[in-house]
Amino acid sequence: MMVLSKNNSLVKELASLKEKKYRRETGRYLVEGKKMVQECLAGGQQVIRLILREDCEECFSEYPQVRLTAEAFEKVCDAETPQGIAAEVAIPGAAVEPPKGRACLFLDGVRDPANVGAAIRTANAAGYGEVYLADCADPYSPKSVRASMSGIFFVNVMQGSREQILHALNDVPLIAADMNGESIFSFCPPQKFCLCIGNEANGLSDSTRLQASYFVKIPMRGSAESLNAAVSAGILMYLLNSKSFK
Amino acid sequence: MMVLSKNNSLVKELASLKEKKYRRETGRYLVEGKKMVQECLAGGQQVIRLILREDCEECFSEYPQVRLTAEAFEKVCDAETPQGIAAEVAIPGAAVEPPKGRACLFLDGVRDPANVGAAIRTANAAGYGEVYLADCADPYSPKSVRASMSGIFFVNVMQGSREQILHALNDVPLIAADMNGESIFSFCPPQKFCLCIGNEANGLSDSTRLQASYFVKIPMRGSAESLNAAVSAGILMYLLNSKSFK
Repeated sequence: MMVLSKNNSLVKELASLKEKKYRRETGRYLVEGKKMVQECLAGGQQVIRLILREDCEECFSEYPQVRLTAEAFEKVCDAETPQGIAAEVAIPGAAVEPPKGRACLFLDGVRDPANVGAAIRTANAAGYGEVYLADCADPYSPKSVRASMSGIFFVNVMQGSREQILHALNDVPLIAADMNGESIFSFCPPQKFCLCIGNEANGLSDSTRLQASYFVKIPMRGSAESLNAAVSAGILMYLLNSKSFK
Repeated sequence: MMVLSKNNSLVKELASLKEKKYRRETGRYLVEGKKMVQECLAGGQQVIRLILREDCEECFSEYPQVRLTAEAFEKVCDAETPQGIAAEVAIPGAAVEPPKGRACLFLDGVRDPANVGAAIRTANAAGYGEVYLADCADPYSPKSVRASMSGIFFVNVMQGSREQILHALNDVPLIAADMNGESIFSFCPPQKFCLCIGNEANGLSDSTRLQASYFVKIPMRGSAESLNAAVSAGILMYLLNSKSFK
């Protein structure tokens, strides 16, 4: 098989997927590392092609693939010490629809890609089947994909405007995380719900607050005023779904 | 007051505090941003000097301070858009001692500075007065300080070797986070305890496991195998301390 070098046009295209603009134009993103690629295939994602460094001995003969020189591979990958295997994957063009499961998550303005990824990772672990994103960091950026571990392959991630998402959630009680809400330790969640987590600095948007049925907070000691958004989301997701784990 | 430019020797010294080596040599670190500096003062930290950009209008007349040109200030700070105020602060030389409170946290090999910072932030909010660190990312790096918000000023952070820390915790039941442990939703914690969180990839060290009295896990659905270390720490800290919040 031909080994592509760093000036090859396909290599340049793959490298450009680090930028949101090109991910949006092509509808594709990059998954890096052996375990992530395996999980991506297990999660039934649409893999366009595998990308192997020339010294990679992994064999996935049933998938289209290209081999790259070490230099070209490094150019394509975002990880500091790339593992020799990556995949070009189609971004699922999920339309914004009402949730199917009992519990879902709405990230409303979460701007740190690591927080978006970690929240998706926890959603998958805590049994939240859908994650809605409005005005957030791109969940398909290398940093966010990495932070999601393989969560992003198993959760239904839906991106849209606040209006679209709030419309899709119209029949679902919204539980808004808010520092003036009821303590999560005394709160009893409804049968079906959507947990809403706001921006790192400013919290939830007005339109989400307006539609919320409940406001809950994580109580805090002493001088603390807030928690990291992914940590808050994790604590609330698990506590709201705790009955299903008992 | 004199305005220092980027080639001034003090400016060079301050800029070098971004590196762990110089923080260790000098026993000092940098706190950036107005709110963080205010909290640092409120937390009774030992501020060596305030560092103000020449256009900064904040007045903290009771503290020693220097003014820097915009260029010099940018060189000193790690933040992408620095706010015009920072502080050089003494790293508290806390000896490793047994915990005083009911609940404390031991980070055993947590390597991501953002995870270390976020765990300290949550510890402060959840009422954990001591955080022990062995083989972890430096909690006084700019990234970790930022992620801790002001948590690092209010929690007693003790760094040492595993042996030192496990010795100090000798009389305290250790609760080890481990994927083969008992579900945190059925576990009943002892009166006094130390929660132990391990490395992002490999979990807890053997010596910590050996000393542990309890093993607990966060149950997970489907394909998920693990959670982000700071998210795990957050969920476990709150659930273990939940009685005190009811």
